[in-house]
Amino acid sequence: MKVTSVWQGGRSFLSTGPSGYAVKTDASAEHGGQGEGAAPMELVLAGLAGCMGVSVTMILERSRLAVERIEIEAEGRRTTEATQGFTYIEVVFKIDASGNPPARRVWRAMELSMEKYCSVSASLKADIGLRLLLNGCDYDT
Amino acid sequence: MKVTSVWQGGRSFLSTGPSGYAVKTDASAEHGGQGEGAAPMELVLAGLAGCMGVSVTMILERSRLAVERIEIEAEGRRTTEATQGFTYIEVVFKIDASGNPPARRVWRAMELSMEKYCSVSASLKADIGLRLLLNGCDYDT
Repeated sequence: MKVTSVWQGGRSFLSTGPSGYAVKTDASAEHGGQGEGAAPMELVLAGLAGCMGVSVTMILERSRLAVERIEIEAEGRRTTEATQGFTYIEVVFKIDASGNPPARRVWRAMELSMEKYCSVSASLKADIGLRLLLNGCDYDT
Repeated sequence: MKVTSVWQGGRSFLSTGPSGYAVKTDASAEHGGQGEGAAPMELVLAGLAGCMGVSVTMILERSRLAVERIEIEAEGRRTTEATQGFTYIEVVFKIDASGNPPARRVWRAMELSMEKYCSVSASLKADIGLRLLLNGCDYDT
């Protein structure tokens, strides 16, 4: 898979891959840019959430759960200030579903996604921690 | 850093981080989506190119080189079909600059970016290979 990024001046780049959807990145003002685009590290987290979302929605669809809302929060952390890359990422799934969906099944979908199906999680060095809020209730594994 | 991704139906998510710039992802039709957004793995490559672009443009600016065009190609590969994540990413910088810029200095900026400054490369498992085309000529390291 190839992505081509064209310099837009300053710290900004416009990147396009096989999908044809262009994504603009920029550094924040704090880091010498103008904030006229997503921060590159945001794309890593957006890619992780979007990727896990693909397999989780697929598995939940097959389980015939009546999912009404999914929000995924991906929070990347660094061990120390000096560490450049993410060392730990917490991925929180907030899922609302009608009926009485078994939390264990949703949790299993999240685990399968992270461990087996998601190419982004497999590409990252960071340890990934999962959390599920199903209809507002924290699933206690 | 936290990114929040809201399900758009199907395999699509809309992700927003601290920058406020929203990025839509979707799976391709081949992977059960509708291709109505960037593929999550494209965001990894766009993040890497955008991130290396930030530090490379910064360093080149300090070097007072008259850079006219920068295009970065990031191509992710997997060792085998069974491997989910990227195992190798080639990052090609195509830079046009007037005057007679010393290729070694541009190359050094790319190396510094990859090894020291870029948070995305530090977050990825993949080995990263660099290539420089300066004014159309391959720099032979």
